Amino acid sequence: MQTRMELVLDAHLPATAIMPTRLHEGMRYAALGGGKRVRALLSYAAGEFCGAPLEHIDVPAASVEMIHAFSLVHDDLPCMDDDDLRRGKPTTHKVYGDAMALLVGDALQSLAFQIISQDKLLNNATQKLQMLHILALASGSRGMAGGQAIDIESIGIPLTREELEQMHIHKTGALIRAAALLGAYSADAPDEEKVKAIDHFAKAIGLAFQVVDDILDAEADTQTLGKTAGKDARNNKSTYVTILGLSAAKQLASELHANAMAALSFYGREADCLRQLANFITQRSF
Amino acid sequence: MQTRMELVLDAHLPATAIMPTRLHEGMRYAALGGGKRVRALLSYAAGEFCGAPLEHIDVPAASVEMIHAFSLVHDDLPCMDDDDLRRGKPTTHKVYGDAMALLVGDALQSLAFQIISQDKLLNNATQKLQMLHILALASGSRGMAGGQAIDIESIGIPLTREELEQMHIHKTGALIRAAALLGAYSADAPDEEKVKAIDHFAKAIGLAFQVVDDILDAEADTQTLGKTAGKDARNNKSTYVTILGLSAAKQLASELHANAMAALSFYGREADCLRQLANFITQRSF
Repeated sequence: MQTRMELVLDAHLPATAIMPTRLHEGMRYAALGGGKRVRALLSYAAGEFCGAPLEHIDVPAASVEMIHAFSLVHDDLPCMDDDDLRRGKPTTHKVYGDAMALLVGDALQSLAFQIISQDKLLNNATQKLQMLHILALASGSRGMAGGQAIDIESIGIPLTREELEQMHIHKTGALIRAAALLGAYSADAPDEEKVKAIDHFAKAIGLAFQVVDDILDAEADTQTLGKTAGKDARNNKSTYVTILGLSAAKQLASELHANAMAALSFYGREADCLRQLANFITQRSF
Repeated sequence: MQTRMELVLDAHLPATAIMPTRLHEGMRYAALGGGKRVRALLSYAAGEFCGAPLEHIDVPAASVEMIHAFSLVHDDLPCMDDDDLRRGKPTTHKVYGDAMALLVGDALQSLAFQIISQDKLLNNATQKLQMLHILALASGSRGMAGGQAIDIESIGIPLTREELEQMHIHKTGALIRAAALLGAYSADAPDEEKVKAIDHFAKAIGLAFQVVDDILDAEADTQTLGKTAGKDARNNKSTYVTILGLSAAKQLASELHANAMAALSFYGREADCLRQLANFITQRSF
């Protein structure tokens, strides 16, 4: 499925032969060739659960991955996290410069909205509008960008567990929920109860994903992680590990995993892809 | 009409009381209280020309102004133009810091797409999708962001007149055309010939706008301009004035004005707002 996503992204990113070539190279560098594609996997699993044909989920899934890639490029910039390494490669601004990386992120955001608006497979205009609305909300000041704002304002200030949770619900949770919902709405008239179950599921694994990230940052070395490890502690950032301790953080990840599974309890094998994904997310490296 | 736009933007920007408060303050700082609102004026004039009720043009016009405001915030960042002054006020990053300014731009872009997708006055889903598509294309790598990429890559390299034109067609022209087209599509089933005339008109005044900008930068002082003047020459940037000289640049602005007027030649008083706007743009300060 990761290979499928790579091909879909490749098909929808502008070719490097098209002007402005360096911007298009940078967009491809940032969006292709790496990452776990958790968001895309979630879109596909949620879409299949709701009965959408795989090819109808391609563009919505790609749009979420583009928003994610854009956020990573901007997040890594010197004025933000100032990171040199991402997915085991030099970050986009290290290769293309800060100004071009800024534009790479901006243009990836536009492209995410563009590809949904022009998608030929999703015939229903209302459905596409709903997806665009969900994606815009999830990316904006009450979603991902808002979470990043809370994050940069909290550097050096110890957060309570509730504040940390609020930050993550916005910073990563909103887009993970959007990935699940866009998958669900790739189906014609998805079952309301299934959409609710998916939303519940996505909330739980979105938070679990972040708790696991914090555990990995505290435990792993840079090579395993593919990005600079131990950065949170050095930056004095509050994480689930600094607030709860390692053992309670692992316990919390297990609880969130159980919550996610519970959301699917009324469903049989049609929810197996979602279950596998929950296992993959919470058992990534421990 | 500028006052109307200010009120519409105010109504659609998140309140500063809503979390994350500082991000929302920054978004309001960047988008409210200033600017000539040329793009909004163009949306309104184009919409009225095509028979759209004013209130149907509000959100499309505001969305274009949000994209414009976002581009200014990112353009002013230290890694781009590194400008301290905009619309006579300190730039967003000077007040809120570079990281928050980056997020202010990102969130304004999302919000532009969000407000169209959720607009209650435009009932036609296909019409809204078309607007979102036009706006995404105009903002992205083949539009505004692409023009900025060409711009930063050409610093210190003398451009030909054709290359300069290509840069401006993308950097400012694409969004100005989008402003006109979003205005036109605010009408139910706008007349095809009128849409073509508006597109032709917008291309001409979009370029005229940039030529005049170059003339003003070469001639005006910082106070009149509301932003740092004479920066192009100091940065060794190619402009219409450096390539053509001041007198030929003024001649070009007049020709583009005439082209814009010619696009409206079949129309009577219903095009007067568009004509006034063309006059305003080309006669701004000389």
